[in-house]
Amino acid sequence: MGRQKVYLDKLSRFFQIRNVLLRQALAECLGTLILVMFGCGAVAQLVLSGGSHGMFLTVNFAFGFAATLGILVCGQVSGGHLNPAVTFALCLLGRERWRKFPMYFLFQTIGAFFGAAIIFGMYYATAGIFATYPGKHLTIVNGFFDQIIGTAALIVCILAIVDPYNNPIPQGLEAFTVGFVVLVIGLSMGFNSGYAVNPARDLGPRIFTSMAGWGSEVFTVRNGWFLVPIFAPFLGTFIGVIIYQLMVGFHVEGEIRDKKTLEEENVRLTNGHMVPSGSPGRAHTTSA
Amino acid sequence: MGRQKVYLDKLSRFFQIRNVLLRQALAECLGTLILVMFGCGAVAQLVLSGGSHGMFLTVNFAFGFAATLGILVCGQVSGGHLNPAVTFALCLLGRERWRKFPMYFLFQTIGAFFGAAIIFGMYYATAGIFATYPGKHLTIVNGFFDQIIGTAALIVCILAIVDPYNNPIPQGLEAFTVGFVVLVIGLSMGFNSGYAVNPARDLGPRIFTSMAGWGSEVFTVRNGWFLVPIFAPFLGTFIGVIIYQLMVGFHVEGEIRDKKTLEEENVRLTNGHMVPSGSPGRAHTTSA
Amino acid sequence: MGRQKVYLDKLSRFFQIRNVLLRQALAECLGTLILVMFGCGAVAQLVLSGGSHGMFLTVNFAFGFAATLGILVCGQVSGGHLNPAVTFALCLLGRERWRKFPMYFLFQTIGAFFGAAIIFGMYYATAGIFATYPGKHLTIVNGFFDQIIGTAALIVCILAIVDPYNNPIPQGLEAFTVGFVVLVIGLSMGFNSGYAVNPARDLGPRIFTSMAGWGSEVFTVRNGWFLVPIFAPFLGTFIGVIIYQLMVGFHVEGEIRDKKTLEEENVRLTNGHMVPSGSPGRAHTTSA
Amino acid sequence: MGRQKVYLDKLSRFFQIRNVLLRQALAECLGTLILVMFGCGAVAQLVLSGGSHGMFLTVNFAFGFAATLGILVCGQVSGGHLNPAVTFALCLLGRERWRKFPMYFLFQTIGAFFGAAIIFGMYYATAGIFATYPGKHLTIVNGFFDQIIGTAALIVCILAIVDPYNNPIPQGLEAFTVGFVVLVIGLSMGFNSGYAVNPARDLGPRIFTSMAGWGSEVFTVRNGWFLVPIFAPFLGTFIGVIIYQLMVGFHVEGEIRDKKTLEEENVRLTNGHMVPSGSPGRAHTTSA
Repeated sequence: MGRQKVYLDKLSRFFQIRNVLLRQALAECLGTLILVMFGCGAVAQLVLSGGSHGMFLTVNFAFGFAATLGILVCGQVSGGHLNPAVTFALCLLGRERWRKFPMYFLFQTIGAFFGAAIIFGMYYATAGIFATYPGKHLTIVNGFFDQIIGTAALIVCILAIVDPYNNPIPQGLEAFTVGFVVLVIGLSMGFNSGYAVNPARDLGPRIFTSMAGWGSEVFTVRNGWFLVPIFAPFLGTFIGVIIYQLMVGFHVEGEIRDKKTLEEENVRLTNGHMVPSGSPGRAHTTSA
Repeated sequence: MGRQKVYLDKLSRFFQIRNVLLRQALAECLGTLILVMFGCGAVAQLVLSGGSHGMFLTVNFAFGFAATLGILVCGQVSGGHLNPAVTFALCLLGRERWRKFPMYFLFQTIGAFFGAAIIFGMYYATAGIFATYPGKHLTIVNGFFDQIIGTAALIVCILAIVDPYNNPIPQGLEAFTVGFVVLVIGLSMGFNSGYAVNPARDLGPRIFTSMAGWGSEVFTVRNGWFLVPIFAPFLGTFIGVIIYQLMVGFHVEGEIRDKKTLEEENVRLTNGHMVPSGSPGRAHTTSA
Repeated sequence: MGRQKVYLDKLSRFFQIRNVLLRQALAECLGTLILVMFGCGAVAQLVLSGGSHGMFLTVNFAFGFAATLGILVCGQVSGGHLNPAVTFALCLLGRERWRKFPMYFLFQTIGAFFGAAIIFGMYYATAGIFATYPGKHLTIVNGFFDQIIGTAALIVCILAIVDPYNNPIPQGLEAFTVGFVVLVIGLSMGFNSGYAVNPARDLGPRIFTSMAGWGSEVFTVRNGWFLVPIFAPFLGTFIGVIIYQLMVGFHVEGEIRDKKTLEEENVRLTNGHMVPSGSPGRAHTTSA
Repeated sequence: MGRQKVYLDKLSRFFQIRNVLLRQALAECLGTLILVMFGCGAVAQLVLSGGSHGMFLTVNFAFGFAATLGILVCGQVSGGHLNPAVTFALCLLGRERWRKFPMYFLFQTIGAFFGAAIIFGMYYATAGIFATYPGKHLTIVNGFFDQIIGTAALIVCILAIVDPYNNPIPQGLEAFTVGFVVLVIGLSMGFNSGYAVNPARDLGPRIFTSMAGWGSEVFTVRNGWFLVPIFAPFLGTFIGVIIYQLMVGFHVEGEIRDKKTLEEENVRLTNGHMVPSGSPGRAHTTSA
């Protein structure tokens, strides 16, 4: 694992953004993307399914918990506003500086733009299918795309929840929060293929049904469709890890690393100058 | 930012209410307003939409989480009773003084009065629209009003959640609480125009759809309707900030400021009386 | 307030049950009563409303959150099993003594008995109304009964939540828990008269509607029905306070008081015997 | 109780698995089983009831909270991934070792296999009933099986929640978590016989209805069906206790016991080497 750590460390240093405002704006961008992706996803699911896979209540739940997840993803870095109106309110009250307002507004809008784009891409294929009755091949491509987006969304949220440098969620609540992630994915991305986003959850029951009398058909149906929910999620995981790390992860890690380095340097300098015991230098270290 | 701080400080001192019972009664009033506004809003949404945007379950959710939000808004100041029956129970058990009961009852009723009035105003226009098929101009006015109320409600709740002098919600739960706010707004105010209450959430996807093939029409439709969900929320934010500050914020801030001033004066007095060295340091330490 | 405190203290001493097992069994009884009352209430509401005020999901929510509330009411005293199967599991694992099992089983069953009886009483009148189209007078009696049960249930749950000697719920969660109480009352008792259980929530909007054009009719309709949701909740509060105090409150208060008295006596005795400073007597006190 | 403790201790030592990776894999297996059992159970309930006991939202809730419960059951031991994609993400980021990945994948799939098998078994009989209109005897067998699975699932989750060696859920949240367990059981196993899984909850109201006019019929109907919800839950409890203890409980208990033994040995060794007075006291203090 030593090598991987070295490589990850290099990546982290390469991509780390040291400008605080840009880092915060990027985090707001990801948070708003998550809010809009899940929220509009629920609307799309409601409309495209003709009401069978949603109702107005599911849209309300999706927006509510999407806000929760968006805040959890970026809150520690940027405050988790997700909404220019919230930034505006905090500026009015003197709790945030006014120069944050245009930057946050811009990146929140960019995030909302891409959130909508993802849902459009995800359900475009579906909507197309409804209209054109495509061949089997397209379904597999569509399913692959679907699984990749779903798993990437899942992984981005889970990484935010378990990231030791991001929001410190109290233990026990982590489990509830992951539950909300799964709920929201179901509310907004469950229409196409039943939101497996989990290779074990799909493969295990498939083997069981094969043994319970359905035979090998469960594996051969649709030219090996059963491989999609096994491999697509891993590709989605990869994409999710990259998105989270580039937009939030590397920067919060880097900040902690920078602080530690600074402290160590201070200690080394202090020790090098032979400060007598009991001196302010040590007091400085212990107070940190 | 210095100037803004000074101005905000002056405002805070001007509007601060020093009578504890009146402050508590005002907080109860705002809390009950929120309970009734969201609760009755959900009933109105259910009835006016003819069941398409609500069912009895959504009313139950709305009243439940509206109670949560009402308590969060005023709990730290007044205990968050929201209900004369609760005040009565606590008086019976000797946990609150009996003189609070008539005052709380009065202000809770006033709050419920205005909560109902807001929903009446919000859905009056809508109900009128259903009956009269108005021109485009009225729709924009109605939408403006709608967005302003929705955003003001959002901002009042969020300010209560993040106010450092009000309810100290454990980190992580803040995100969940904001999620409940967004859920409740959807359950009770989502019928008219889809409860954007967020300029980025509306503008980003609009730009995307414009680029994805719908063209400039998304901006020109209805004489520039797209400006409403951009500007109305900021006006609503302004109103929300004023309401929260006048009814809760300024008073809790003022209380903290008064305490600090008192402490500092005590320290100065102690120092002025020529306390021997070694003493002021200790006084300072204990007050920290 | 001094006199009231003295009187409450006397009441508390008179009704305090010192037998630990009986106290625990009584608490289990109340907890199971709450579970069954809310759960079966939701079933009754679903069935009697013919599906307009419930669906299978509302029954699931009601049983789930009813379990939460039942545990919160009695958990600190008895462990909050609410279910002989849970008691059985803990006995099997040696975490509870076997002699608790028959006692808990008995009192849980008694609690379930009364929980069903309350719902029967509450919806019996309603069911009767459906069949017989009664006069106005009966409706007022029924509404009174309805409001009393609803408010008593609300107050029992809220007293458990805010009781300083019962379950110490972390601040912030209290607000959420009260929200769940209101949600569950709506899910299981909302059918008859819209579950006001809150004089302010009814009176405020009524005054508003009177002023908004409906005139004095809102007060004169049905021979002064508007007085029911003002006065019935206070009667219900009274009953709720008595039930909670007799079954849980007085006993946990008494236990704390007994401990304090014992400690004070120990201190007095120790001081009276002139124990030298640094002695075990003080160590005892500080370790308590 | 002394004897039972000794016997339980022996059992615990006999079944304790000391290989950390195997222990973690077993825990993942149980967690994924719970996820798939509740999730697929909700799908089965929706489909088999023809929509009367479920909708797409209930499936979403079931999967969401099933994830929460699965994580709570195994999180302390294995991290609660429940999903090879999550394991993969954490390996990619260097937070888990790569050798865990195949092992977790395998056992998560095994868990999902058995989760599906349990639901198949539970609803197979039901589905059969729909087709064949069986005699009374089969219904009792089916009901027995149903009650056993439901109660076993309940007990496994509750044991995980209250296990002092497993996830330390903050007090107050325990009550909410149990509420979620009951909710999820209703969402996924409520179709067959109304998910009593609680002898008191069934017996109490039955006695009441018998007294309220239905007479002894409530006990004699269907050749003593009333005995099923009294006795089946205890059998289910037994099975649930065994499953939880074998797959999680004994191993976490054992780990703590092993640690304690090691510490005590260290202390004894230190004392045995004639440490001067003043030292053992300190060693004792630090280990406390």
